[in-house]
Amino acid sequence: MKVGGRHYRSIWREEGTGAVRIIDQRWLPHDFRIATLSTLDDFATAIRDMWVRGAPLIGATAAHGVACEMARDPSDGALDAACARLHATRPTAINLRWALDEMRAVLGPLPVQDRAAAALAEAGRICDADVETNRLIGVHGLEIIRAIAARKAPGEAVNILTHCNAGWLATVDWGTATSPMYHAVEAGIPIHVWVDETRPRNQGAQLTAWEMAGHGIPHHLIADNAGGHLMQHGQVDMVIVGTDRTTARGDVCNKIGTYLKALAAADNGVPFYVALPSSTIDWRVEDGVREIPIEERDGREVTHVFGADEEGVARFVRISPEGTPGGNPAFDVTPARLVTGLITERGVAPASREGLERLFPERRD
Amino acid sequence: MKVGGRHYRSIWREEGTGAVRIIDQRWLPHDFRIATLSTLDDFATAIRDMWVRGAPLIGATAAHGVACEMARDPSDGALDAACARLHATRPTAINLRWALDEMRAVLGPLPVQDRAAAALAEAGRICDADVETNRLIGVHGLEIIRAIAARKAPGEAVNILTHCNAGWLATVDWGTATSPMYHAVEAGIPIHVWVDETRPRNQGAQLTAWEMAGHGIPHHLIADNAGGHLMQHGQVDMVIVGTDRTTARGDVCNKIGTYLKALAAADNGVPFYVALPSSTIDWRVEDGVREIPIEERDGREVTHVFGADEEGVARFVRISPEGTPGGNPAFDVTPARLVTGLITERGVAPASREGLERLFPERRD
Repeated sequence: MKVGGRHYRSIWREEGTGAVRIIDQRWLPHDFRIATLSTLDDFATAIRDMWVRGAPLIGATAAHGVACEMARDPSDGALDAACARLHATRPTAINLRWALDEMRAVLGPLPVQDRAAAALAEAGRICDADVETNRLIGVHGLEIIRAIAARKAPGEAVNILTHCNAGWLATVDWGTATSPMYHAVEAGIPIHVWVDETRPRNQGAQLTAWEMAGHGIPHHLIADNAGGHLMQHGQVDMVIVGTDRTTARGDVCNKIGTYLKALAAADNGVPFYVALPSSTIDWRVEDGVREIPIEERDGREVTHVFGADEEGVARFVRISPEGTPGGNPAFDVTPARLVTGLITERGVAPASREGLERLFPERRD
Repeated sequence: MKVGGRHYRSIWREEGTGAVRIIDQRWLPHDFRIATLSTLDDFATAIRDMWVRGAPLIGATAAHGVACEMARDPSDGALDAACARLHATRPTAINLRWALDEMRAVLGPLPVQDRAAAALAEAGRICDADVETNRLIGVHGLEIIRAIAARKAPGEAVNILTHCNAGWLATVDWGTATSPMYHAVEAGIPIHVWVDETRPRNQGAQLTAWEMAGHGIPHHLIADNAGGHLMQHGQVDMVIVGTDRTTARGDVCNKIGTYLKALAAADNGVPFYVALPSSTIDWRVEDGVREIPIEERDGREVTHVFGADEEGVARFVRISPEGTPGGNPAFDVTPARLVTGLITERGVAPASREGLERLFPERRD
């Protein structure tokens, strides 16, 4: 999407040089830096040290990393080593594993001399497929926004609340939760976005707000505490969030705090939508609260906050007494009963096994 | 309560010198500074610039401010001017007005030469009455904690979640929401406190965590997003929060985000208690969501965070892009249906008009 009037993807190959460029997201929103990745080392570092984050983007970056290595050395040994190396950077990232498996499946059977070109093509295909999936999510989500806008006075903005960053920065382009918003803007429907800051890591403040500002979408940053009050007072027309994992019955595992917003939406009759590529549906899991293990992250993410000081220097500050430990569950699970609908690349499904199976009949038992 | 093993109130008169001392709360938790207030100017500054905060403590400080001025000049003119001056520091603070009215009611009818001593006595009485009110809240709340502890294995801690700072730093001593916790500790009941950081102003991280650390109570600081997840997984036995204003039917206006925790508590069968002195019940208001106007504060409180940097220097950092505005409703209203009970100085009442009138029959229509 747009940054200062110019269109970007979060990862791209430069025409001519063939260099792979990414937005180095560690410095956002304080500094917009573009990095060039030219060795396997560069790709591994970019994933491990979170220059890129977001499941789809991690997968796309890994695919380009393999392509980079195949251009240098297309041997079986180099392919194995590159996949192992990249997989080790963030071993729990499901899309990383998936992208590497795709690359290996395409490249493994090929003669060595064909691999460099095939790897490039496959990495490009993975990126384009992600963009297309997210575009379709946006097309389907747009209709929900359009229906809400139709019930408002002409010109009155549709107020959308979102949590965390399920934006284009987490994907190759469009994002998941944000794709319906960008599509609404393109369709000329006025929207206003309430951006949850999303403590402890502030992905809302750092990334979603930056996306909104860059694309010129009216928005306010709010504390994660504020959404319930806004809903009580009719200031939220709908919620759209992303998800890291959706169960077969429609429970949604997403950034910590999502569940609280879903409760408030249900209590106030505000529709609560979750946008997701079907690749994040875990068909083997039913009960998200009982079955999905939740990562407990470093307590320092709670006790320390990242920001820019008066001189614009980005740094961490400690907000609590030195002896106080932080508790930091990274995700929570929103039960399907609180979810109005799941916006997928195939359409909008009720959050239930029947609803999902209607859209994905190939998954029916 | 205790700081490093020594007992403090949040405001006290030093024996001998008669100087009034306060904890200058602007620097907490990074620096524990005690300030001496010796002129009317000092008191006005301390209230206006939030060296002291919390309704009861503001009232107590104002009373001591009047006493200070009466020692210098006990005339009618000085009394009027002092009350006007102090009232203007935070004109919407209800306890400030109340304390000044009390002082004026006692001092006005007295001969000028008796006012200095009477003012001192009355300021002391206001402070002691606040301590006694909060002590009683703790005594009643303790019984709730005791009953929960009795259902646990011996030695297993009762997990209490609290939001914002309704602690001794907001009152003269004990606090409201924290008083049952301190009483539990004194009674030898093991507790563990989940401290919501309470964005945007982080009163939980800065004040409640500091109180817990100072008194040696096991606790974790958590993002405001985490409580729902903890409740889903049985890690919260009860919630206790304070309130700025309670309606006649038991709706509770408190720091933004309280409502979200109450929703999660109700969804998970976790008891949700509100601790309050009866002086904060507004008997003229029924429907809190509709009738209580909510203060919208400066958006910079959301976009900027206060903390100590690596060198221990306390400073603000900006967490969001420069152009992003903050939305900052300061309070929300938790409907009575979500409140398990109101812990007052007279006992625990159901959150309903009948419940409150049973404890406060003099308020019956």
